[in-house]
Amino acid sequence: MAVRLGWLAPRACRRVLKRAFSLHKEHSIKDMENTFQLVRNIVPPLTTKKHKGQDGRIGIVGGCQEYTGAPYFAAISALKVGADLSHVFCTREAAPVIKSYSPELIVHPVLDSPDAVSEVEKWLPRLHALVVGPGLGRDDALLENVKGILEASKARAIPVVIDADGLWLIAQQPLLIQGYEKAVLTPNYMEFSRLFEAVLRDPLDSSDRRGAVLRLSQALGNVTVVQKGEQDVISDGKQVSALSSWLPLARAPSQDSATTKPSRSTAARPPPLT
Amino acid sequence: MAVRLGWLAPRACRRVLKRAFSLHKEHSIKDMENTFQLVRNIVPPLTTKKHKGQDGRIGIVGGCQEYTGAPYFAAISALKVGADLSHVFCTREAAPVIKSYSPELIVHPVLDSPDAVSEVEKWLPRLHALVVGPGLGRDDALLENVKGILEASKARAIPVVIDADGLWLIAQQPLLIQGYEKAVLTPNYMEFSRLFEAVLRDPLDSSDRRGAVLRLSQALGNVTVVQKGEQDVISDGKQVSALSSWLPLARAPSQDSATTKPSRSTAARPPPLT
Repeated sequence: MAVRLGWLAPRACRRVLKRAFSLHKEHSIKDMENTFQLVRNIVPPLTTKKHKGQDGRIGIVGGCQEYTGAPYFAAISALKVGADLSHVFCTREAAPVIKSYSPELIVHPVLDSPDAVSEVEKWLPRLHALVVGPGLGRDDALLENVKGILEASKARAIPVVIDADGLWLIAQQPLLIQGYEKAVLTPNYMEFSRLFEAVLRDPLDSSDRRGAVLRLSQALGNVTVVQKGEQDVISDGKQVSALSSWLPLARAPSQDSATTKPSRSTAARPPPLT
Repeated sequence: MAVRLGWLAPRACRRVLKRAFSLHKEHSIKDMENTFQLVRNIVPPLTTKKHKGQDGRIGIVGGCQEYTGAPYFAAISALKVGADLSHVFCTREAAPVIKSYSPELIVHPVLDSPDAVSEVEKWLPRLHALVVGPGLGRDDALLENVKGILEASKARAIPVVIDADGLWLIAQQPLLIQGYEKAVLTPNYMEFSRLFEAVLRDPLDSSDRRGAVLRLSQALGNVTVVQKGEQDVISDGKQVSALSSWLPLARAPSQDSATTKPSRSTAARPPPLT
């Protein structure tokens, strides 16, 4: 659940949860309280003792000609769950659009430049975690740049959440994150099937989700896999657990009362700060 | 506090203060009322006797490829605390983005042009105060233009608030504001340390903040220094005082109920009108 609710400010969280519970009568107030606690654990306490940046500097790699919403939701979500600074690294044309969604974001129009990798690399020392994939698209040149950015992030041991078309890249080149235990993959059902069959060269047995998620994580060298669904199935290759989700996350943000809610593809929680 | 609350409209101020007080039980209702009074003193009374512009025409120098939010927050904050007109002088590419944040701003895409200095200079006679630095970045060509703009503002005795990367420029070239008593520097802790060590060529003794702020102000020839922190420490080189701040400003605006709250680096109050 933390993965799903991480991006919500406590008040918005309560609103969305109430709605979710009204849709899922079987859940108890106790469940709701437990969920609040999970959310509370994610949000850093407000304090005047810290300076700006100490509670998280997050980078989002994505945003292209077609897709500008997903990287915005990922970046603003990081701020709403407690991070201090959110950077978006996107294509030149996507940048002014993403900037215009919120003055709180720092947007770098570099992802389609010839120096994309070095342009992003020079910011890496200042970032605690990277989210790769929201609104990335499947343009070969962009994916090639993202490949270089992933390599540079691994070289610096920066935690990386890979989602959406970042997962498409991994399905093509699993070695990119093979054995990198600071990677978290957040596939939905379709993305998971593609990854599973690409990595294990084996048809997916959908009757055993836990087993499949465990196997994929192990095959990738203990990369954390979060398969999103009505239940999230999460494995680090050693253990596997399933968490009920009460949020209709297939729903587009615009259809939800929490207007700043990120789309399913961007509801990933930044890993703990290093 | 005025420095911190200057940008808030009275109602938003009350909301933020309530929240701040709920986080800081030790503060009394009396403190709160005193703070309201400070804020009231900043906001000019609404009157039909004045024409648009008499209550303040403010210029913001900043806004570049990466940063567009900070100059917006500085400019809109000036309007919210009672100024009539806010001009932003930024780079060509940043301008449409900053314009898109609010139709209330007047945005000039001139900061990276070869005539940047004369383009800004021709507006100076119409401005009561300049805020230099929010979202400026550290590009050498831009800093060179800002240097010229500062010289032109001093020649016209225009009050200047220097913040963010404007303080980076001052740390490189302290002579730029040496002895200019109409300058107000608003460093956070990191910016203050950099300035202190650049100007006094002396390691900062963080056990004596008041003494350090007083010394820096004196070394710069009685420039007003406002060191932002849990307590703001303010000195004009003659006296020094500390004001409690009850706002958790390390937090990104998106996490706050006052959605127009500026980022820490832009929470500077324009100096009194001349």
